Amino acid sequence: MEKRLEISLLLDFYGPLLTEKQRDIMDLYYNKDLSLSEISEITSASRQAIHDLIKRCGNLLIEYEDKLQLMKKTLTIENSKTRIIDRLEMFKTNMEIQENKEIINDIIKDIAESI
Amino acid sequence: MEKRLEISLLLDFYGPLLTEKQRDIMDLYYNKDLSLSEISEITSASRQAIHDLIKRCGNLLIEYEDKLQLMKKTLTIENSKTRIIDRLEMFKTNMEIQENKEIINDIIKDIAESI
Repeated sequence: MEKRLEISLLLDFYGPLLTEKQRDIMDLYYNKDLSLSEISEITSASRQAIHDLIKRCGNLLIEYEDKLQLMKKTLTIENSKTRIIDRLEMFKTNMEIQENKEIINDIIKDIAESI
Repeated sequence: MEKRLEISLLLDFYGPLLTEKQRDIMDLYYNKDLSLSEISEITSASRQAIHDLIKRCGNLLIEYEDKLQLMKKTLTIENSKTRIIDRLEMFKTNMEIQENKEIINDIIKDIAESI
């Protein structure tokens, strides 16, 4: 995965573990695509300080993922969920009784909404 | 949820964010049920130091859960998974064709193993 996208995704998972200030600056850089100079202007911090914060927080996010694997596990479950729904959709096409189709539809909806 | 059980469960989720020493002592206290005095003897640290570490790490684990809700989300998914498997089992009993029963069994197995 491209580093920039990876950090942006990790922010979704581990952002709450950063301070509000760190999270805001990471968001400006990785999600809003602002440059170091632009962020420096907005926050009245030096360009170097912003650069260091972004690097430090990026390493922190990667360290959290190394330890908890929250993103990896979530993506794995998402893939399984898609596969299982596809299998149920396929199975549904072979059902001839309308009532059975509806039951399967309802179970698919349950999976989609609750997992 | 009883506090002792809660901390023990939170250790499973957030243990990797503690240091090895912290994790070991929390494990001795919450999972192996050793007393402060026993842990103090094993680790050659004062009873007071062990007491403080256990309290500090317990608060840390609760703080992680407040921020990431990893345990809460996992328990919710576990409940959904059980409910969905139950629904498929129930649906299966109404199937008359053996082949259809087998397909549903296979999907249930997929859910059980991959989510």
